[in-house]
Amino acid sequence: MTELENTQIEINELSLDQVFILLEQQNIDQLQLLLSSALPGQIADILEAMPPTERKQLWALIPESLGSETLTFLHDEVRNALIIDMPAEELIAAAELMEVNDLADMIEELPEPVRQSIEDNLSAEILEHLETSLSFDDGTAGRLMSPDVITVRSDVTLETVLRYLHIHEDLPDYTDGLMVINREGIYQGKLLLNKLLTHHEDTLVQELMSIQHQAIPSLTSEHEIALFFERSNFVSAAVVDENNHLLGRITMDDVIHILRSEADHALMSSAGLDEEADLFAPVIKSAKQRTIWLFINLITAFLAAWVIGMYAETVEKIVALAVLMPVVASMGGIAGSQTLTLTIRGLALNQISSGNTSWLARKEVLIGIINGLIWSAVVAGIAWLWFQDIGISLVIAAAIVINLIAAAAAGIAIPLTLHRLGIDPALSGAVILTTVTDVVGFMSFLGLATHYLL
Amino acid sequence: MTELENTQIEINELSLDQVFILLEQQNIDQLQLLLSSALPGQIADILEAMPPTERKQLWALIPESLGSETLTFLHDEVRNALIIDMPAEELIAAAELMEVNDLADMIEELPEPVRQSIEDNLSAEILEHLETSLSFDDGTAGRLMSPDVITVRSDVTLETVLRYLHIHEDLPDYTDGLMVINREGIYQGKLLLNKLLTHHEDTLVQELMSIQHQAIPSLTSEHEIALFFERSNFVSAAVVDENNHLLGRITMDDVIHILRSEADHALMSSAGLDEEADLFAPVIKSAKQRTIWLFINLITAFLAAWVIGMYAETVEKIVALAVLMPVVASMGGIAGSQTLTLTIRGLALNQISSGNTSWLARKEVLIGIINGLIWSAVVAGIAWLWFQDIGISLVIAAAIVINLIAAAAAGIAIPLTLHRLGIDPALSGAVILTTVTDVVGFMSFLGLATHYLL
Repeated sequence: MTELENTQIEINELSLDQVFILLEQQNIDQLQLLLSSALPGQIADILEAMPPTERKQLWALIPESLGSETLTFLHDEVRNALIIDMPAEELIAAAELMEVNDLADMIEELPEPVRQSIEDNLSAEILEHLETSLSFDDGTAGRLMSPDVITVRSDVTLETVLRYLHIHEDLPDYTDGLMVINREGIYQGKLLLNKLLTHHEDTLVQELMSIQHQAIPSLTSEHEIALFFERSNFVSAAVVDENNHLLGRITMDDVIHILRSEADHALMSSAGLDEEADLFAPVIKSAKQRTIWLFINLITAFLAAWVIGMYAETVEKIVALAVLMPVVASMGGIAGSQTLTLTIRGLALNQISSGNTSWLARKEVLIGIINGLIWSAVVAGIAWLWFQDIGISLVIAAAIVINLIAAAAAGIAIPLTLHRLGIDPALSGAVILTTVTDVVGFMSFLGLATHYLL
Repeated sequence: MTELENTQIEINELSLDQVFILLEQQNIDQLQLLLSSALPGQIADILEAMPPTERKQLWALIPESLGSETLTFLHDEVRNALIIDMPAEELIAAAELMEVNDLADMIEELPEPVRQSIEDNLSAEILEHLETSLSFDDGTAGRLMSPDVITVRSDVTLETVLRYLHIHEDLPDYTDGLMVINREGIYQGKLLLNKLLTHHEDTLVQELMSIQHQAIPSLTSEHEIALFFERSNFVSAAVVDENNHLLGRITMDDVIHILRSEADHALMSSAGLDEEADLFAPVIKSAKQRTIWLFINLITAFLAAWVIGMYAETVEKIVALAVLMPVVASMGGIAGSQTLTLTIRGLALNQISSGNTSWLARKEVLIGIINGLIWSAVVAGIAWLWFQDIGISLVIAAAIVINLIAAAAAGIAIPLTLHRLGIDPALSGAVILTTVTDVVGFMSFLGLATHYLL
């Protein structure tokens, strides 16, 4: 049994807690041992979870063989901070080991002299790949692709292919098939390893290759690439130019990276944060990054205050209105954010089109009316128990129904409009929505009160 | 050139707009043609974007060969609604074509008699796999794994392996290697296809197999599985029981599914929504699902109202307080949500531990103080211009600084506490945080005003 138990390796050998303890004990040997057997992505996560001093200590202990790949897993801000302190030779060595798309992402962020010295030291082949990569915009298939593709011709037999593969020492990671091209380099299809391994050696490649194995046009966006892989069963796919020339390939690990980044971006931008920012950045830097969001919010808060100010006299006479007004605004905000979230998700999944928008809008407004009626009755009841004033109860009930309807309409209209204008609704949708529900909430509640209760 | 252009196939042939137009035109032939060449995941996305009537029409047009796989891509609520209307034979046929983990997920949701009739009609082999799958909790490696693994022994040559593979007509999707097991079924490592294709036929499996190719314990959570794949370069990994017996394998498409679900869950639950809910569910059903969230919010809103109520007399005397109080509350809410979001993300990535919590808390509070000082000065200035009262300006400045410090502390403490209690901070973190910033905001502002201005 002992032998059996030994072979069971636990996932995640390297834990953050462990690293903190070993660093504190200055148990460098043990730490180096653990690091040498860890995966680069794991090391990157741990580095990002370290305050600056500890991070530098740990970075110095990472073996050079793991360093370059670790760099590619780090977010921009953390990576750039580490790179600045690296000696030129080390940086060049790391660059040579990187995948071309990672190198392109990194090199764009470097100061010109550092960039130049790296480029001067790259082999002609890597430099050419790097230039191709940089000629495409960030976020396109052309930038994301890697050039390490094994190609075969369609008029050879599997035996020839197998012999050709034997020349290689290893195949690139995520090779689920070989790309079939013609004399001109035009992509023709993919020979899956599955087929190669299960068919007779005399078979010709053209009899087996999958021609329905779509290639990705080089200008396709990351978002479309991710949807495409999710719906297919590919591990890798060819990237082609407008003439169907094979340029490179995109692999499933890129897709995982896209999905993680998209989720990260959605989460962080909803709070006005930059997903590339360092959790342990200097205080002043972080404060500066966050202050813009507070400023935008301040404008909307003063807009709401201004609306209340218009009804200052009413509030002065009936102070219960000041007590209850946050209830109206916040019920609208919550209901509206539900509709907003659904719409943002629908847009991200390409599930909203002119064919279903009106159905969806009608549905959301109806839900607003139903929930508005239910909760306005409850709120009116509580208000009556509290202030014993039937007028206030009726006014707050009406204001809640109005605000929930406005919230539903805004929850659909705001993201659709932002989307059409090319603005990411995940970033600014919530701020605009809350402004609407605050203004409508305060205005309907205090306006109705001014009209009927004074 | 024409030939070349023809081979370039556009990604996403089937667009939602197109389907809506063809359905309206009742152009059934064209629609069936498009559907037959679409990917199941694509069809599922389009079905989910259809109102109920159109969805049923479209579902009836989907060829049976695509239907079962399409079902596995649908969210629970949509899938279950479609299944209820399917004739028993069709449902059984679909079940037989499904992957075991998808079947397990589906069958758990079905009414007992339907479930029984499906189970009665499954082959003994599939039924056994299904029972194994169902014996694991949802969200574990055991439930997620599929049993379609090709195994080899370590003491045979590559030639034997190649001959053995030739017996197969095809290999399962996402096969990047063969699992090496011993006589007792104990997992020993993985023979990568890369190695198989690039080494001499006389080589023994044991010389080539990767033993550092970790297996996943069957009780590992989906979240850990995703992190594990992200950090490695595997396309598939073995799942083993506590004795290291090979049970099945998990593939990269499962990981993409996990990541998508996690992102979906984080987005939807932040607005109190269920990610499995149907965008086009009946109005009453949707209203019911959302109303709980409104109820929870109502409690917190009345808590804020109650705080204001305590200072009703003050507000009655100085109505400017009623006008300005939302500014104090909302600045705290925004600043707090930034800290909260960072902490939630850090927890999700296992980047927060006892080793860095105090560093982080100190940093966030410092940012709160800095931004508090900056914006309280601005707000005090605006308040002075508006109401020409130095007392009000000083009180609101102090209240904003207090609230931003409280927001930072709450933004760290709330998710950490929820996490420790086993509650998902993404679900309830924001509600609790806003309650804190509302209460602290109103209390500090109105409390200070009562003390110093009356």
